[in-house]
Amino acid sequence: MVPAVFVSLGYSEHNIVIAFLKTIAVTVVAGAVFYLLGLKAQKKFYAREGLVCVGLAWVALSLTGALPFVFSGEIPHYIDALFEIVSGFTTTGASVVKSVEDLSKGILYWRSFPHWIGGMGVLVFVLAIIPVFSKSSGSSFYLLRAESPGPDVGKMTPRIRQTAMLSYIMYIVLTVLDVIFLLIGHMPLFDSICVAFGTAGTGGFGIRNDSIASYTPFAQNVCTVFMIMFGVNFGLYYHLIRGKALTVLKDEEFRFYIFTYIAASAVIILNLKSAGTEVTNTTVRNSFFTAASIMTTTGFATTDFNLWPSLSKAVLLFLMFCGASAGSTGGGIKCSRVIILFKSLRRNVHHYLHPNRVQTVRYNGKTVDEEVVTNTNIYLTAYVMIVIFSVILVSIDGFSFESNFSAVMATFNNIGPGFDVVGPTGNFAAYSYFSKIIFIADMLAGRLEIFPILVFFSRSTWKRS
Amino acid sequence: MVPAVFVSLGYSEHNIVIAFLKTIAVTVVAGAVFYLLGLKAQKKFYAREGLVCVGLAWVALSLTGALPFVFSGEIPHYIDALFEIVSGFTTTGASVVKSVEDLSKGILYWRSFPHWIGGMGVLVFVLAIIPVFSKSSGSSFYLLRAESPGPDVGKMTPRIRQTAMLSYIMYIVLTVLDVIFLLIGHMPLFDSICVAFGTAGTGGFGIRNDSIASYTPFAQNVCTVFMIMFGVNFGLYYHLIRGKALTVLKDEEFRFYIFTYIAASAVIILNLKSAGTEVTNTTVRNSFFTAASIMTTTGFATTDFNLWPSLSKAVLLFLMFCGASAGSTGGGIKCSRVIILFKSLRRNVHHYLHPNRVQTVRYNGKTVDEEVVTNTNIYLTAYVMIVIFSVILVSIDGFSFESNFSAVMATFNNIGPGFDVVGPTGNFAAYSYFSKIIFIADMLAGRLEIFPILVFFSRSTWKRS
Repeated sequence: MVPAVFVSLGYSEHNIVIAFLKTIAVTVVAGAVFYLLGLKAQKKFYAREGLVCVGLAWVALSLTGALPFVFSGEIPHYIDALFEIVSGFTTTGASVVKSVEDLSKGILYWRSFPHWIGGMGVLVFVLAIIPVFSKSSGSSFYLLRAESPGPDVGKMTPRIRQTAMLSYIMYIVLTVLDVIFLLIGHMPLFDSICVAFGTAGTGGFGIRNDSIASYTPFAQNVCTVFMIMFGVNFGLYYHLIRGKALTVLKDEEFRFYIFTYIAASAVIILNLKSAGTEVTNTTVRNSFFTAASIMTTTGFATTDFNLWPSLSKAVLLFLMFCGASAGSTGGGIKCSRVIILFKSLRRNVHHYLHPNRVQTVRYNGKTVDEEVVTNTNIYLTAYVMIVIFSVILVSIDGFSFESNFSAVMATFNNIGPGFDVVGPTGNFAAYSYFSKIIFIADMLAGRLEIFPILVFFSRSTWKRS
Repeated sequence: MVPAVFVSLGYSEHNIVIAFLKTIAVTVVAGAVFYLLGLKAQKKFYAREGLVCVGLAWVALSLTGALPFVFSGEIPHYIDALFEIVSGFTTTGASVVKSVEDLSKGILYWRSFPHWIGGMGVLVFVLAIIPVFSKSSGSSFYLLRAESPGPDVGKMTPRIRQTAMLSYIMYIVLTVLDVIFLLIGHMPLFDSICVAFGTAGTGGFGIRNDSIASYTPFAQNVCTVFMIMFGVNFGLYYHLIRGKALTVLKDEEFRFYIFTYIAASAVIILNLKSAGTEVTNTTVRNSFFTAASIMTTTGFATTDFNLWPSLSKAVLLFLMFCGASAGSTGGGIKCSRVIILFKSLRRNVHHYLHPNRVQTVRYNGKTVDEEVVTNTNIYLTAYVMIVIFSVILVSIDGFSFESNFSAVMATFNNIGPGFDVVGPTGNFAAYSYFSKIIFIADMLAGRLEIFPILVFFSRSTWKRS
């Protein structure tokens, strides 16, 4: 929160400075109380402890992170403030603010900076920066595994802390490059930094009411390219640095990701054309921008895609589901999972035909463990169940099915805008506080990939065993 | 088709008689040609042959069954006619006919009778009636397994043919009872028979433009009760006859089915009340009727539930997904699969907590084989993929997302009406022929539970091995 204090000071927003200082005081006091009350540290630290730890960390972070919005009076209701900060940390970018241009700079910064931290993972950040955790690499491994997006954490180096640091260095370098290119595109410095945070974390909070639409075409294209780059598995950049370009090009997830992105953009352009839109440079730019924004689960907008024809909107919903690559900052179900789902389905069809032949699912040239195949399919089951129950619960508010379904998809996949009421020109303000709590739970479940949240609410987690 | 000829004769519809006779002639000639061209019968008859056989039988049946609609001129376009007959045999009940009251009696009969045959399974019918198959019980087993709804065929008796016959006898008895009760409710005889066919097969073609709305309340309640009865696993009736009522009451699927049905009806009534509808007997009757109609995937309507508030519509969509019981004539994903999905999800959460403890999924007191758990989850994967791609493809026509999504759910789950354009007062006529072909494929995939259709289109099915 300290950088936000300096931003507020720089813009002479004194009441915002006070709001942040109050929050810092509350957090320090609460932290001290919990530290003093603290139970004796357990020696065991396995999957369960990792999952619960991550769950608690995110809840604590959200509860305190919401306070500056309330203290400053810019988002007076606590549930709204909680929605906004969870939307920030989970890199969703869905907002309850009707006009973001009325917010102060300090508060705008405090919406965008959590994107950057949350994209890589709050605890991964801690692991990379604070050396105390490096002593017990067991706990770091389980923390990292519980927080990182994707079906597994590819250990780039045997040492967890090095992995975390290396990722963060690449993350910082790419973010700085993004800022530089945005400045070249005539975007103001403050805007460039906030937009780069939103791009790097695949978050998507804009700092103008029309999101990215009023910046230069060059700046918009810079966004498109960097969104796509931040949706790639970071492990591939490591391979690239080590000169293994071929490994990158052969990577199944990378191929699927790029192919799906280009195909979706092309379908959207053709669909807009057949619906009578004249295909100009702007149409092409908007199509590639929107497909990148939705597939990487960022959620920036340059056009009101809610007005697009049905086919384009259906393609966007598919991209929401599909999401970015594992090991990136993006959300959604992840391309690698989609590939494994397809392949396990094909395997089962073949199994019907040749019941006695042993058939395995292969991914990137290696046999996928049967447990991973089963877990990936059960992950989809959990995903479907959460979508169904969330849609039913938020339907109580009485909005259209398109609004409700796309709102759940947009929060659960950490995208931001949906269609109709929650379209790019709309926001989540109209929903009831009950629905907002559902959306908050969906955003957290989406960012932490469901199981930490399910474990957190499971009775047997809290039993002594 | 012979009964339909007599119906037409009875109502002196001579051109319809001719249409049926023409079709019978075409079918006999085509059958004779294929018989003479026939390849030497293979001795091997396993899962692959069973699946392909069922797939081919349903395709052949649909292609010829559509002809009377075309020959009579009442549904002139062949794709429309194909849609209508597939909708009949798959017990969907979705229609392209704008005013069914304009159709002749013979054609109305030929829409409803296929519901009755298709509900139990075309080949199951053949197995029960024609003794030739009883010689090779291996082939009958694989045919039965490929065609029957639900995760597995519970063999009530060791002999396949006895199982098929026993099911059919219960089916006939229940259908006759349904007709008798409808007659008591002052429904005309012709209507009673057609409605009973639609109820027994969980089909849902109405013979009036307002479906069931203009019959007496008593007749509507008879429909509700019989729809629910035909959505129960037929194996349970066998237990009931043998005096094992406790087995029925303890059955997990039966409990889930009844509980979900009552809970859904109650939520709908409360939702209608909170939306300002006065809760009268009619409201209660319509709510229980509609929940039964959608959950059993029948699709009859007594009210325009498209006008219901969002929560009720979301609950109906969940019922569409959930469907009836395995081993009934209903569609959807089936209650037993939903139970296994929930349990496997819970098992996986526990597995996170205690990775070294062996944990199994239990159903009706027995351990579920891990292969069944995996296959059930992969079944959901196939389901989700088909829904996604169908929605994308039919979106080309440009209707609302609510129309497209509910149309796919209504055809794929063999229900009939959806929301918006395809709501209870609408129909599928507005969709393009391309979309109708997608819906036809969805109806077949839904009725045959996906895998026979996937196997049918798999390259390796047609390779010699």
